[in-house]
Amino acid sequence: MTAAPPLDEFERIARFFAPLATAGALGLADDVALIDGPPGEQYVLKTDAIVEGVHFLASDPPQQVAQKLLRVNLSDLAAKGARPLGYLLTTALPKARDEAWLAAFSAGLAEDQARFGIGLLGGDSVAIDGPVMLSVAAIGRIAAGRAVLRSGARAGDRLYVTGSLGDAALGLAVLRGERLGVDDTAAQFLGERYRLPQPRLAIGQALLGIAHAMMDVSDGLIQDLGHLAKASGVAATVEAPSLPLSPALRQAIGRDPRHLMAALAGGDDYELLFAAPATAAPAIAALARETGVAITAIGRMAAGSGVRVLDGAGAAMAIPVGGYRHF
Amino acid sequence: MTAAPPLDEFERIARFFAPLATAGALGLADDVALIDGPPGEQYVLKTDAIVEGVHFLASDPPQQVAQKLLRVNLSDLAAKGARPLGYLLTTALPKARDEAWLAAFSAGLAEDQARFGIGLLGGDSVAIDGPVMLSVAAIGRIAAGRAVLRSGARAGDRLYVTGSLGDAALGLAVLRGERLGVDDTAAQFLGERYRLPQPRLAIGQALLGIAHAMMDVSDGLIQDLGHLAKASGVAATVEAPSLPLSPALRQAIGRDPRHLMAALAGGDDYELLFAAPATAAPAIAALARETGVAITAIGRMAAGSGVRVLDGAGAAMAIPVGGYRHF
Repeated sequence: MTAAPPLDEFERIARFFAPLATAGALGLADDVALIDGPPGEQYVLKTDAIVEGVHFLASDPPQQVAQKLLRVNLSDLAAKGARPLGYLLTTALPKARDEAWLAAFSAGLAEDQARFGIGLLGGDSVAIDGPVMLSVAAIGRIAAGRAVLRSGARAGDRLYVTGSLGDAALGLAVLRGERLGVDDTAAQFLGERYRLPQPRLAIGQALLGIAHAMMDVSDGLIQDLGHLAKASGVAATVEAPSLPLSPALRQAIGRDPRHLMAALAGGDDYELLFAAPATAAPAIAALARETGVAITAIGRMAAGSGVRVLDGAGAAMAIPVGGYRHF
Repeated sequence: MTAAPPLDEFERIARFFAPLATAGALGLADDVALIDGPPGEQYVLKTDAIVEGVHFLASDPPQQVAQKLLRVNLSDLAAKGARPLGYLLTTALPKARDEAWLAAFSAGLAEDQARFGIGLLGGDSVAIDGPVMLSVAAIGRIAAGRAVLRSGARAGDRLYVTGSLGDAALGLAVLRGERLGVDDTAAQFLGERYRLPQPRLAIGQALLGIAHAMMDVSDGLIQDLGHLAKASGVAATVEAPSLPLSPALRQAIGRDPRHLMAALAGGDDYELLFAAPATAAPAIAALARETGVAITAIGRMAAGSGVRVLDGAGAAMAIPVGGYRHF
């Protein structure tokens, strides 16, 4: 007789927390909650935490830690099409953390508050005998009933992603001391992509009325796309040759083709993944031109279930279970 | 040349975070933020975190840890007169924390959700190589412009507190193994008061239109009253013989008179502290009868600044700086 294997994060949520969810929480299945706002509007609520040694490194500049903390939350607001309003902040800091760290951390918050037009609504500070742990609850606004959920994709929709994929996963490897055989410029680019996500707020808002379903890619494309496909009740097919890869990631793949897996299963991308009807292609192309951010068609939704990835010859690729692990 | 002393929590907030506060955050000086809600209403936002070994003990039942986490947040909503709506939850748990712990923790959440009429709106779970750290962002509703702030107390107001003071501080001592010379019943009562705060939601809501200023007592009466007096621009006088003391605390004081300090400066009470005009005394007495919760007049507000505590002879008592420390 063997013990049952431990539940993973999603199983834990499903068993212990989903039964506690209130109406606006969308069954905890959509990254955000919606509550009534002023007339014609809803608030979009999201909380996301980051831990030193997991989501950022002790050597990361505190300004950038602050910015990553805000941006991983803003990315979820972007993925619903919301306009960010403000945030609540919880900091758990070791007592030895000095005021210089806090000064730099708050300077990073101030910079991104100005950049994204948000304000601090409140917070709590606790001392912890452990790693730095930071949590934000972010609040955005959206026209009532307009939020783009995960569950609206339809068979026949095209699948799109913003920016490029896989950079952050390799950036983490670089920041941990691996060189991956890439040049200094590429290494620096990858590290920055890990440290400083770019929440695609303007694109998310512009996709209201265009995208059928949307979420941000934070746990790796395949895993997150699996959630979107399941919530929508359709199947997804990704064409690997269409994946948007940065020049830095192409360098790394040139050294070791396995690094393509970072784009399929690496975490921390914080790009938007969305499904839209084929008729929206011209509007999406225009949006990419206007914002200067690539928006790439990477596949299609179809009747059925599950996620397939096809290589250049149209053959299904084997995808490791459990996301990309640094190798 | 000596280094500057480290800033305390309030100085850190003032220096690093208050400049980041947005309009609804009330300068981070009122425990909550207010944002526009549906017509005629505002949302009240609050975040409070608890850490194992600081705000609860590793030996505390997980159900009660969950309840304390919710209640410390609900207490702040109560102190504004708000009706609780829901919450976002962040859990940072060591990997070894097993599913039995999570099951009990979520059962405690479910019980208090039913008790207080709230629902889970969303959350994030992270693994941490350190103590359990739990954070909640709570959301309540209140009629627009009606929230009772800290800043409304006037000279001549009477000062009131709900329930009894000091129990939780001695309860923590008991749970850490001290007996304080009290009997088993008293020891158990004090421990429960530490573990399970009672957010005074009904009283808080009933005090709308009656209380001029209100907050909850979480860091000790003197310290918290100091914040209320300062925000209101008035002085406060507390008559020590009027402090509401439980029979258990009286037992402890009988063994060691210094335990009176727990009622003046001990933390974790989560009772309401409010200032109201003398004309409100009958309504307040009626409210205590209706709710079955003691509401005790403990002093007065006057022109000036600062907090004085008078003993039975009318002489000013010396109050240790920095709150009550377990001795």
